[in-house]
Amino acid sequence: MITRFAAALTLLCMSSTALADTWIDNVNGISVNRDGSVDRFAGLVIDEDGRISEILDFGDRPTREIEYRVDGDGRVMVPGFIDGHAHLMDLGLGTLVLDLSGTQSLEEALSRIAAYAAANPDRPWIIGRGWNQERWGLDRFPTAAELDAVVSDRPVWLERADNHAHWGNSLALAAGNVTAQTRNPAGGRIERLANGAPAGVLIDNATDLVTSQVPPPLPEDRDLALYNAQQLLLSFGITAMADMGTTVEDWMTIRRAGDAGWLQIRIMAYADSLAEMLLIGGPGPTQWLYEDRLRLNGLKVKLDGALGSRGALLKQPYADDPGNQGLPLTSGTQLRNLMSRAALDNFQIAVHAIGDAANADLLQAIDELAKDYTGDRRWRVEHAQIVDTSDMAMFGQHGIIASMQPVHQTSDMFMAEARLGADRLDGAYAWRTILDQGGTLAFGTDAPVEPVDPLSGIAAAVSRTNAEGEPFGGWLPEQTISREQALAAYTANAAYAGFADGRFGRLAPGERADFVFLSADPLLASPEQIRGVQVMETWIAGQRVYDADVQNPLIEGPHGAEAAGR
Amino acid sequence: MITRFAAALTLLCMSSTALADTWIDNVNGISVNRDGSVDRFAGLVIDEDGRISEILDFGDRPTREIEYRVDGDGRVMVPGFIDGHAHLMDLGLGTLVLDLSGTQSLEEALSRIAAYAAANPDRPWIIGRGWNQERWGLDRFPTAAELDAVVSDRPVWLERADNHAHWGNSLALAAGNVTAQTRNPAGGRIERLANGAPAGVLIDNATDLVTSQVPPPLPEDRDLALYNAQQLLLSFGITAMADMGTTVEDWMTIRRAGDAGWLQIRIMAYADSLAEMLLIGGPGPTQWLYEDRLRLNGLKVKLDGALGSRGALLKQPYADDPGNQGLPLTSGTQLRNLMSRAALDNFQIAVHAIGDAANADLLQAIDELAKDYTGDRRWRVEHAQIVDTSDMAMFGQHGIIASMQPVHQTSDMFMAEARLGADRLDGAYAWRTILDQGGTLAFGTDAPVEPVDPLSGIAAAVSRTNAEGEPFGGWLPEQTISREQALAAYTANAAYAGFADGRFGRLAPGERADFVFLSADPLLASPEQIRGVQVMETWIAGQRVYDADVQNPLIEGPHGAEAAGR
Repeated sequence: MITRFAAALTLLCMSSTALADTWIDNVNGISVNRDGSVDRFAGLVIDEDGRISEILDFGDRPTREIEYRVDGDGRVMVPGFIDGHAHLMDLGLGTLVLDLSGTQSLEEALSRIAAYAAANPDRPWIIGRGWNQERWGLDRFPTAAELDAVVSDRPVWLERADNHAHWGNSLALAAGNVTAQTRNPAGGRIERLANGAPAGVLIDNATDLVTSQVPPPLPEDRDLALYNAQQLLLSFGITAMADMGTTVEDWMTIRRAGDAGWLQIRIMAYADSLAEMLLIGGPGPTQWLYEDRLRLNGLKVKLDGALGSRGALLKQPYADDPGNQGLPLTSGTQLRNLMSRAALDNFQIAVHAIGDAANADLLQAIDELAKDYTGDRRWRVEHAQIVDTSDMAMFGQHGIIASMQPVHQTSDMFMAEARLGADRLDGAYAWRTILDQGGTLAFGTDAPVEPVDPLSGIAAAVSRTNAEGEPFGGWLPEQTISREQALAAYTANAAYAGFADGRFGRLAPGERADFVFLSADPLLASPEQIRGVQVMETWIAGQRVYDADVQNPLIEGPHGAEAAGR
Repeated sequence: MITRFAAALTLLCMSSTALADTWIDNVNGISVNRDGSVDRFAGLVIDEDGRISEILDFGDRPTREIEYRVDGDGRVMVPGFIDGHAHLMDLGLGTLVLDLSGTQSLEEALSRIAAYAAANPDRPWIIGRGWNQERWGLDRFPTAAELDAVVSDRPVWLERADNHAHWGNSLALAAGNVTAQTRNPAGGRIERLANGAPAGVLIDNATDLVTSQVPPPLPEDRDLALYNAQQLLLSFGITAMADMGTTVEDWMTIRRAGDAGWLQIRIMAYADSLAEMLLIGGPGPTQWLYEDRLRLNGLKVKLDGALGSRGALLKQPYADDPGNQGLPLTSGTQLRNLMSRAALDNFQIAVHAIGDAANADLLQAIDELAKDYTGDRRWRVEHAQIVDTSDMAMFGQHGIIASMQPVHQTSDMFMAEARLGADRLDGAYAWRTILDQGGTLAFGTDAPVEPVDPLSGIAAAVSRTNAEGEPFGGWLPEQTISREQALAAYTANAAYAGFADGRFGRLAPGERADFVFLSADPLLASPEQIRGVQVMETWIAGQRVYDADVQNPLIEGPHGAEAAGR
């Protein structure tokens, strides 16, 4: 449909310099290939379409006429980072709630809550998180009555810093029908006054009584959440991501941004359910939409739970809970049915597998399905945290992608030792072994579970140490990989893992000009230095979309975009 | 987002003649304005963007340089027809089922069924319609056993020509759990063998037992259905339509077509439910997408049923059913809540109201809501078939749009007399009165309930007679309107009714070049001649999309589009 571009064409042909070729010169350019080999360069030429047309060495000049020349001032340029596993809308919606994590007293918290309620008169509930009565120097939980004194016109529902309790006002308790007659549910507790009435704080499973009544976000909130998530990702140099568990609501929100013209980040989407996958994609994966900014690749499936909560499926019982081997979220038959239905129409499949039993079952299922569903499938194992070494070879045999989150290793290491015992860690967060077996590594953050900082991930991947440099020498240090391999897992291989290779992920002719200016070369830095590398600018499709030196966002948000009539 | 157009730009700037200005000369051009006034012209100039840049009189030459000149051969050109009320996907899905309406014997029907099953091995059910055992010369209903003999590997479920019975094979009956033990449901009957077992045909409400088990269409079928519906509409000269009751599945299907580049027809969508409206539109109506080819305008609500089935809500009991005043589908409170929620975010509201009580309640609700929801709201009454003359003034007071289907009048007239009695017909299908009161008329077909033929509608509107010219002189002939008013209701006013005025609906500078070449001038023809006017060519955005003289479709379908990688 040529005509649909015609309105833009008229404008552009009149002012053809606006999208003329741009030469970005004098950079310390780095691009990593899928095998970890590095290309270094001094400049690149960006086409009218935001793609790279030439990569230049020192002293080279572009072969064709250039309208603009930008001096890179010798700064380090790397490909835009690609987060191989994150949750876009969760990340964004988290930015909209009241953050009480910095409060030092109950009074300060109450005053922040009152101010937030006054500033958000249209929000039907006040939702927040991060309070901790111990930090406040309070030797008891706060009460509903204390909240009622500052907000009595609508429910207030605030999650404690440890995620294991919520504090509500009277309207929140009433919304959950929590009364003196309500019994403590299994695995939960209702804090009570002397007369048995609920005091205001609910613990663990009791929180569901109220949380289930919280209204879903308004569409305006979803739009704003997406915008905030995008800003956050761009500020960390992330130019593309795999969205794990895209709902139809999420998809519609992303399309609104694309239609309105403010979607910048590139999203490889994996639907939250088979029904949503078929609803969005129809007979197969969608096209690449908005100039390579959005595609539904396939389906996300959850096979087991997490290690911390002992939900990961293990081959042997938990070392610290001998009767327990975890809880399956999807049966082996269901898994195969889902994979088969998705593969039938060439949807890609990304399966969350954390424990060694879950990984073994998934690898076995891939082995079975790969006989019928041949061709370029790029089966994805999400997390692949604990893999029995006897199952590892399958990663190479079927070209399987291990989509891993290096920071999980440093967050989880001591917990993992407790859950598994020291003897069962050979295949724990074992990115080196997976690489050696011929698997492909794609790295991500699982944000908002972990911060969206790719440089911390690279530091963890090459050192197996946390931000404090612990443990000295690294945890299972034989699993470290090179800086180049880690950068590839955050760029070229994360693109490949989402069928985006050739479109973005490398700085090479024909790919989109998505890149980041960094304060230092991460390939020549110590792990500690890597954590301190600053993202100075982020560019997508040859346009600067984030600049650390500029206070105001470079991208207009949903309302700005509306006002501008885009 | 300028860059998203860049790929097209590169191509177009190189071959700039492809979209150069086109002069269509030597036409008998007609465009009607909202007030029914007519503009006649001899040529028009189409811009690079598919919009009209100039309207030319005889002897005029374009003011700017022209690349292409097309000789119109003196043919009649009118604006593309706009169907103000139709059901796009129902129309399309209807094209996919087996059509038995032409069969002359049971043997012929069975052989067609067998051939269709063989040609469609992947369809899990064989669905069809149009059989009539009387036309076959059969003095009994056909049986399940007869169907089993030709299709026994999957259910077969075939609707009788009158829509009041279905014929199934044994697998269809089993899917509905219809056995010798199944009782006849209220309002339904199961034809039985001597031993009480179901014979194969179910009547009226009994058909739901099986129909409820028919699987929903596959995404591929939805895509094909949309394509077929588009082809059908284009062949009748329809270039835009209001889709009444767009589901999320429908929306996704339309977007796939838009993304793939084969969506031609312009769709003004009204969501099937409030939840779907909010899911699709989010904080408000969507933008115009795909160069004015798709917009979610708002919400469709059904207030009552139909007159034929005595579901329309009447102020007095049915003349032919004295205990009955119809059945409300939405309560007055629900109606006001839905309208209020939609209006709050500037969604448009289109409410199905057929009986005089339903119309009175709706007009009253608009009167109440118009106090709070001011501005340009364009409240729509869908059908407005029976309106008490004492309620008519409201159409003018609030600028209300009566979205009516002229062919319903000629299909329904004798039935309407039976339902209401001769004394209660003053406000029946009363387009003249609504116009006189200052309301706006938008005409449509309610397809697939009626054929998608706008010229039949115009003939009915100006004559109040059916295709046989009956009744002589017209039914309630004081309600006829002029040819110009009828054409305006099918073009400029139908666009206005969907907030598309200024974009399409007239042949005037700045509007999209959507037009039809007709075999004769409908403004100078008798009703009988109007019914015989042929659509020779249909153009959208300055491109020919249908030509009666060309066998093969001019638009590639979903698979062609995929193959071409668009």
